[in-house]
Amino acid sequence: MVIKSGTIQFKENPSIASTGVVVGPTEKKSTFAESFDEVLLLENEKGETFEQAHTHFIEKACKETLRKGHEKLENVDVFIGGDLVNQLSPTNFAARELAIPFLGVFSACASSVESVILGSLLLESGNAKSVLAGASSHHPSVERQFRYPLEYGAQRPGTSQWTVTAAGFALLQKHAKNAPIITHATIGRVVDGGQKNPLFMGAAMAPAARDTIERHLTNTNSRMADYDVIMTGDLGKIGLSILKEMFQDENSGVILQDAGAQFYGEDEFFKAGASGAGCSAAVYFSYVFNQLKSGVYKRVLLVATGALLSPLTFQQGETIPCIAHAIECRMEKRG
Amino acid sequence: MVIKSGTIQFKENPSIASTGVVVGPTEKKSTFAESFDEVLLLENEKGETFEQAHTHFIEKACKETLRKGHEKLENVDVFIGGDLVNQLSPTNFAARELAIPFLGVFSACASSVESVILGSLLLESGNAKSVLAGASSHHPSVERQFRYPLEYGAQRPGTSQWTVTAAGFALLQKHAKNAPIITHATIGRVVDGGQKNPLFMGAAMAPAARDTIERHLTNTNSRMADYDVIMTGDLGKIGLSILKEMFQDENSGVILQDAGAQFYGEDEFFKAGASGAGCSAAVYFSYVFNQLKSGVYKRVLLVATGALLSPLTFQQGETIPCIAHAIECRMEKRG
Repeated sequence: MVIKSGTIQFKENPSIASTGVVVGPTEKKSTFAESFDEVLLLENEKGETFEQAHTHFIEKACKETLRKGHEKLENVDVFIGGDLVNQLSPTNFAARELAIPFLGVFSACASSVESVILGSLLLESGNAKSVLAGASSHHPSVERQFRYPLEYGAQRPGTSQWTVTAAGFALLQKHAKNAPIITHATIGRVVDGGQKNPLFMGAAMAPAARDTIERHLTNTNSRMADYDVIMTGDLGKIGLSILKEMFQDENSGVILQDAGAQFYGEDEFFKAGASGAGCSAAVYFSYVFNQLKSGVYKRVLLVATGALLSPLTFQQGETIPCIAHAIECRMEKRG
Repeated sequence: MVIKSGTIQFKENPSIASTGVVVGPTEKKSTFAESFDEVLLLENEKGETFEQAHTHFIEKACKETLRKGHEKLENVDVFIGGDLVNQLSPTNFAARELAIPFLGVFSACASSVESVILGSLLLESGNAKSVLAGASSHHPSVERQFRYPLEYGAQRPGTSQWTVTAAGFALLQKHAKNAPIITHATIGRVVDGGQKNPLFMGAAMAPAARDTIERHLTNTNSRMADYDVIMTGDLGKIGLSILKEMFQDENSGVILQDAGAQFYGEDEFFKAGASGAGCSAAVYFSYVFNQLKSGVYKRVLLVATGALLSPLTFQQGETIPCIAHAIECRMEKRG
């Protein structure tokens, strides 16, 4: 089927065979902590740079994904991933270790879903049997690059979000047994609402999320009420409330949820919630995946959101362009 | 067909309907200058930051591609691109202007071919009719980020290469009339030969190019002599000679060529030649495309090469992981 404004319909039943989520010590406080596969005790081991540690989170998550999927690395055709560090260094170094064909992607915190869309396309076109796809972020690596080194102890306003340390990956295979199927995807457009504040990214990203959700619903001839949940990636508490106001749908209050808003519960230390490429990856590939597997969710729309800013564009006074990529997952009745 | 070690066989005849290449003032000196669509007189207009200028090169190249392909922007389903600036800001900002669904990719100077591979997959799977795919680099933007601001006048060793200012894009459509067809692609693996010198990237990238070429030839059951040319992206003069030594093929001396090695001819100012994500994009989407269109080339393998280093990984003493993505293009007898 040809794209209608960026929406893809998959006909060959690409599915999520297994997932692996490895998080850092702070993420033990997450609402979703029990769904994560492994919680590491340290952000980095002795002698490791933050970025090397970041790489190891990715490698561990991939290993866990394969272990749970009973699949060997040599049977995986392609590895697809991205992160927030300049030039995707942590993902590149993990790809060096995995040593299988690799596609690097960047759409900031929307990279998790971009990876899954491309992996599904590879399966759909018959050009792969198994793909590892996902994304990650690492708090100390990302904060010192985008904002301040943690040692500065910079004050954070109430609109700010906490970059999670997490790597989340999925093993994609055609029609795996008892696995959620990826039925559709909507590729994001870059939307810029004119926001400039890098400590209020929920407001910047909400218009991009709205654009993608609206196009997805229109192109698939669906209503919000058709979904158990429409979960954005990391709009945070304030961004989510902005998004809800944008929709004139009576169901938006219940069905629209955000991984970042829920990630750390009501703990005020984390201000408006969680963010980072690993935020949506961690929640989608643990809690949401489990809810689909167990049949609690039957149809969900996962809308990873990314703020495409950089320290340089901020310093140059540019506004923050944003993007949101979506995948629709369904769980068929278990046979 | 299922991937054999990363090689894709396209069955639906994705083709390069048209191309657009816009370059900077220094690139007027290129061996390929007559093939470029537009040579701008300045690296940046008055009042523009280098990065804003970079964005405008991308926009102009896309516009030129559409003009030559007699296609309207609103008929293009997806825009795929990448560049070397942190967070792909120039490409993101161009995507904001284009306002169509967008996929950001990063494999450094191999991004041009990664974009084309993903665009071809979208066509192949029936999920798009028209895709704009390509990559770009901008000398002043890239040099000040990766090495030194140009004003420093830093000395360059003989192994160094000159980052080109160029944006090259292609309009991909299924079986366009009298257009080169993309028959196969090989997705690169990250290969690290242990090189650490960021001013000698040809040596770092040659092993990645070798890995991809070898896998492509093996997986497609081909020999080097089957191709009119196998053109790597930006190994430069020294990197190309290293690559030639790696092959025990009597034809490697003639058939193996490198866009970066030829880009500035024998002008010693440019040391080992050209580099940058725009280097392979500019040559593949102008000179090589024209040679295919006119039937001079009938079968070529284009192997864009990328060094996945960053200033940070260099400072941390890491070696340089590299990748090379390949597409095979054929020109059928004109009907």
